[in-house]
Amino acid sequence: MSQNPLRDRLYHILEPHRKGDYVSQVFDIFLILLILANTAAVMASTVSEIHQQWHPQLYAFEVFSVVVFSLEYIGRVWSATSAPQTLPFRKGPYQKPWQQRLRYVFTPMALVDLAAILPFFLSMFVLLDLRILRLLRLTRLIKLGRYSRSVNLLFTVIKKELRVLAAAVSVLIIVMVLAATGMYYIEQHAQPEAFGSIPAALWWAINTLTTVGYGDVTPVTALGKVFSGAITILGVGIFALPAGILASRLSEQLRLRRDTFRKHVMEVMEDGSLTPHELSRLNQLRETLGLDDDQANLLIDLAQDYKQQNQQDDQHFRYCPHCGKSLPQPEDSHSHQG
Amino acid sequence: MSQNPLRDRLYHILEPHRKGDYVSQVFDIFLILLILANTAAVMASTVSEIHQQWHPQLYAFEVFSVVVFSLEYIGRVWSATSAPQTLPFRKGPYQKPWQQRLRYVFTPMALVDLAAILPFFLSMFVLLDLRILRLLRLTRLIKLGRYSRSVNLLFTVIKKELRVLAAAVSVLIIVMVLAATGMYYIEQHAQPEAFGSIPAALWWAINTLTTVGYGDVTPVTALGKVFSGAITILGVGIFALPAGILASRLSEQLRLRRDTFRKHVMEVMEDGSLTPHELSRLNQLRETLGLDDDQANLLIDLAQDYKQQNQQDDQHFRYCPHCGKSLPQPEDSHSHQG
Amino acid sequence: MSQNPLRDRLYHILEPHRKGDYVSQVFDIFLILLILANTAAVMASTVSEIHQQWHPQLYAFEVFSVVVFSLEYIGRVWSATSAPQTLPFRKGPYQKPWQQRLRYVFTPMALVDLAAILPFFLSMFVLLDLRILRLLRLTRLIKLGRYSRSVNLLFTVIKKELRVLAAAVSVLIIVMVLAATGMYYIEQHAQPEAFGSIPAALWWAINTLTTVGYGDVTPVTALGKVFSGAITILGVGIFALPAGILASRLSEQLRLRRDTFRKHVMEVMEDGSLTPHELSRLNQLRETLGLDDDQANLLIDLAQDYKQQNQQDDQHFRYCPHCGKSLPQPEDSHSHQG
Amino acid sequence: MSQNPLRDRLYHILEPHRKGDYVSQVFDIFLILLILANTAAVMASTVSEIHQQWHPQLYAFEVFSVVVFSLEYIGRVWSATSAPQTLPFRKGPYQKPWQQRLRYVFTPMALVDLAAILPFFLSMFVLLDLRILRLLRLTRLIKLGRYSRSVNLLFTVIKKELRVLAAAVSVLIIVMVLAATGMYYIEQHAQPEAFGSIPAALWWAINTLTTVGYGDVTPVTALGKVFSGAITILGVGIFALPAGILASRLSEQLRLRRDTFRKHVMEVMEDGSLTPHELSRLNQLRETLGLDDDQANLLIDLAQDYKQQNQQDDQHFRYCPHCGKSLPQPEDSHSHQG
Repeated sequence: MSQNPLRDRLYHILEPHRKGDYVSQVFDIFLILLILANTAAVMASTVSEIHQQWHPQLYAFEVFSVVVFSLEYIGRVWSATSAPQTLPFRKGPYQKPWQQRLRYVFTPMALVDLAAILPFFLSMFVLLDLRILRLLRLTRLIKLGRYSRSVNLLFTVIKKELRVLAAAVSVLIIVMVLAATGMYYIEQHAQPEAFGSIPAALWWAINTLTTVGYGDVTPVTALGKVFSGAITILGVGIFALPAGILASRLSEQLRLRRDTFRKHVMEVMEDGSLTPHELSRLNQLRETLGLDDDQANLLIDLAQDYKQQNQQDDQHFRYCPHCGKSLPQPEDSHSHQG
Repeated sequence: MSQNPLRDRLYHILEPHRKGDYVSQVFDIFLILLILANTAAVMASTVSEIHQQWHPQLYAFEVFSVVVFSLEYIGRVWSATSAPQTLPFRKGPYQKPWQQRLRYVFTPMALVDLAAILPFFLSMFVLLDLRILRLLRLTRLIKLGRYSRSVNLLFTVIKKELRVLAAAVSVLIIVMVLAATGMYYIEQHAQPEAFGSIPAALWWAINTLTTVGYGDVTPVTALGKVFSGAITILGVGIFALPAGILASRLSEQLRLRRDTFRKHVMEVMEDGSLTPHELSRLNQLRETLGLDDDQANLLIDLAQDYKQQNQQDDQHFRYCPHCGKSLPQPEDSHSHQG
Repeated sequence: MSQNPLRDRLYHILEPHRKGDYVSQVFDIFLILLILANTAAVMASTVSEIHQQWHPQLYAFEVFSVVVFSLEYIGRVWSATSAPQTLPFRKGPYQKPWQQRLRYVFTPMALVDLAAILPFFLSMFVLLDLRILRLLRLTRLIKLGRYSRSVNLLFTVIKKELRVLAAAVSVLIIVMVLAATGMYYIEQHAQPEAFGSIPAALWWAINTLTTVGYGDVTPVTALGKVFSGAITILGVGIFALPAGILASRLSEQLRLRRDTFRKHVMEVMEDGSLTPHELSRLNQLRETLGLDDDQANLLIDLAQDYKQQNQQDDQHFRYCPHCGKSLPQPEDSHSHQG
Repeated sequence: MSQNPLRDRLYHILEPHRKGDYVSQVFDIFLILLILANTAAVMASTVSEIHQQWHPQLYAFEVFSVVVFSLEYIGRVWSATSAPQTLPFRKGPYQKPWQQRLRYVFTPMALVDLAAILPFFLSMFVLLDLRILRLLRLTRLIKLGRYSRSVNLLFTVIKKELRVLAAAVSVLIIVMVLAATGMYYIEQHAQPEAFGSIPAALWWAINTLTTVGYGDVTPVTALGKVFSGAITILGVGIFALPAGILASRLSEQLRLRRDTFRKHVMEVMEDGSLTPHELSRLNQLRETLGLDDDQANLLIDLAQDYKQQNQQDDQHFRYCPHCGKSLPQPEDSHSHQG
């Protein structure tokens, strides 16, 4: 992609490691541990005894972390031009390096990286509230997202199924408002403090319908208990829904991705063979689609069997073209006819 | 559909907007915000400090809201005759405009719209309890349902799977009654207040089996704790069931809808091409069936590829019309025989 | 089946009604209401005020209920010989009427029916504890199971997936024992009452891992809180499993039943037509398999289309034999060749 | 496998019994009961009254148990050489008996068996804390895992889906840390004890987001309640995700295993018949894959029907070998052409 091997190497070190790239792997582990240690440090520094006793050490650690994260950020921006064009069909016109870098700077992960270091530098020039500074340091936790494919999968699903989740939450909130209103009318006089207004009653409704049930506010009148019981049973029933909808939608997604992979395998194997380069491309696709090793291998095996058979004798279906299973050999019948 | 362009335009503005209709979109957003503001106003007006201080403003807002909702209602009833016949096979005999409007007035959403304004007008003539008036104002929340396809999906699912949900709730209630009865016999004498009768023990049973667990009533005897523990474990086990049943049924529904869509795509493309009008009809169908953009596009793409191939050489299946996978070319074998 | 029309009629009235049999429907509703009223009566009779004031009425109602249930029981046993042989392949040797009735008496539902009336008659001869009598009256609730197909579906699923559920409960109990043991060592000295022994600590473990969380017993030491938090997160994670396993297994079951139905439809339509009798048999099968109306109709439609096409021209695939979708017509290409 | 029939017999007795091997079954039940009794004994011995009164009996039972488990362990190690090569493709070079035994000793289940007896023998030579000894005795519970296929299924799933579960737990922990941080800032001054530091606030966050909700620590400020409510609703929404992902992944697994089984059935029946030996091998495979009896039988039936049909007339597909549906008879069209 580029003519700068140093920058290319840096790019690969900073990105999540590939199998066999041990330098990149060590760097990944180091960064993950540093992020976790930062989180622990922020949490520990709010315990006053720890804060008083270890203040200098914690500050030194913070400076060290900011230096590392700053270098990482600079490295990422500089090596952004070495990124492969993962989406070739989207490439558009040629971009100058500074355009590529500027575009990278505004990607979500780059903004998170910036948010992880900026407050420290800002606090040198501007007087910032120490507590808000600390809070911003926790954004470093989000940097972890880069390293876990499963966490990414979760976020992908959340993004894709946001509507269903939002709908479920909307219905929940509507039910909560109605429950709070009902309870306000019922318990208003018995417990003027806990149910004196609908917003106050909402506290009870939220903690009941999510089944948290702190128990700091509970109905005391008979009617209130009947109403509360009915609402709780209803709420639990409603809550089986979003989970079920999500599960069925995710099954669909998985099927869609498997079909896409199978289509690519068949295309790649049009010529009956599978070069190492094609295999590595398929593997990349497999990872992008989040498919299992087992499934991918099965699909490739079936396609390979099918192609080999059909090359020997390209007249008949030896393998079902749809599922790749072997068929009894009808060519015998044809030879009878011939 | 009708010869009145003004009424047709009004109809489209009042309905949830289509892509590109910005006037309708602005109107939708305005109504959604108004509904949410109404809910907030009802909730705020129950807080006595807010009520005393902001009473005139809140009343003015209520009058304004009722005026807007009334105009909306009148507009909807008047423009009901502009509604397209979404279900052509159900059209039946010709209906006069007033018949169409009357039929519209009795649709569920129109009744909700009426319930959102009627109490205000009634309170001018009849002396109504202010608190019940306020409660009825919250029915305005249900008007929101019109604007969220996902919320509608949830309600569709609830309606369709009502039996399963009802069965789950029935089983739950039966288990609760039995649990309450058991606990009543065990804890009757130890806690005569909380477990003095089966209805009283039900309060404990509901809050335990739904895992709310307020903790205001808990067993104190050893036997009661053993029984409570056993029932809780059992109850949690039973509760994995309805969620599982729902998930599997919804998967089925999704599969059914996808098949229906595929069937329509193939029918529409019988002639090998896809006119913009056909595409827009397919898109409408896609929305009705609640299918994903990605899925619909994949299905259309596959159908298109298939048709193009088959036009060049319309004798043989080069691609399976159903799954789009390439087929071995049987014409070679036939020509050999010929 | 039998030569006694009166007994046959009685049999159909007692069984859950079929569409159009209004006498049977009225009888069903009457019995369901009677069962619910019985449950309410048992529950109400444990409230001492109600018991004192309404005792004669409650007793009269009990006598009335027992009479009705006894007549129902006698009717069921007598008309058991009118039951159709629902499972023809299981018929075995000819059975005399009294053998059929005896076999019926030992079916689970008949035993429940007996348990619903027997205690009342026993209490006439033997001195029974009134409280146990009352408890036994609640078995009448189980009679409801006869009338809800969805409740039956739930029980079928529980029976079929008992192993998975049992395994989930076993794992849960093992985790609970280990959690209780850990907490016993940690909190033993801080809270000798709540965590003084492993059985005592189990009460905490059960209510924490099922997320009931009464809050009557909570860890107070720092280590206890860390341990409790870790166990809770773990427990919630483990609990997503059985629900997921169940959902996937139920999807499988549904698929299996749909395939079975399709197979029967294809068999029934071998001759290309569908007689009303065949249709009613298919409908019965559909109900037994718990399939949706929509699904069944779609499957029948597809089969019908397929058969009609293939009768006109039995040489070529006009419809895919697997999914029943229409195929482009290859016979044109053959005529070209010819 | 080996020439020592005694050792082979011992091996089969010690392994979970097969159908019909009653000696092995009795031994299995005996061991299961012994393990359960051991767990009960450990739990009971922590109740001080029981400990004081029954100490000698409990100790005798412990000695008896250790003797049995030791003999079991020795038997298992000795008979390890009789284990069939369950994974023939993994056999590698020939191993001497002591190598096989050494390899067995380091399998997880063998280590659990060792951990169940070792502490007792160690305590004879070294002075061990009695409480830790007792704790180690509970590892015997894990020995139960050998006997339940469903528990094994659960563990298999956990192992296979560990990444998804770990991702879900990671996201949960991140949300918890952020929630605890937010609450720490909000409630810091109102409740310095419960929310005085982020670690302290984590206790609240864990018990709220897992919906345990003990209620020992709840927000008291208005802002705290709003924040808590928002986080709770969000948390419940996020928690529908892992369950959904798991369910869809498990469906995939099940489909994969069913396809594998079908492939083997077709292979085994290449010759058109199914010998008892082949059937027993298929049954073993079915158990390994965790398939239902019904499903396996259906697959075998379909394959059998297919083979029988194709033997009568082995030229054409009368039934699809994969789904068992009848196919239109293409030989007619071919003969027309011929």
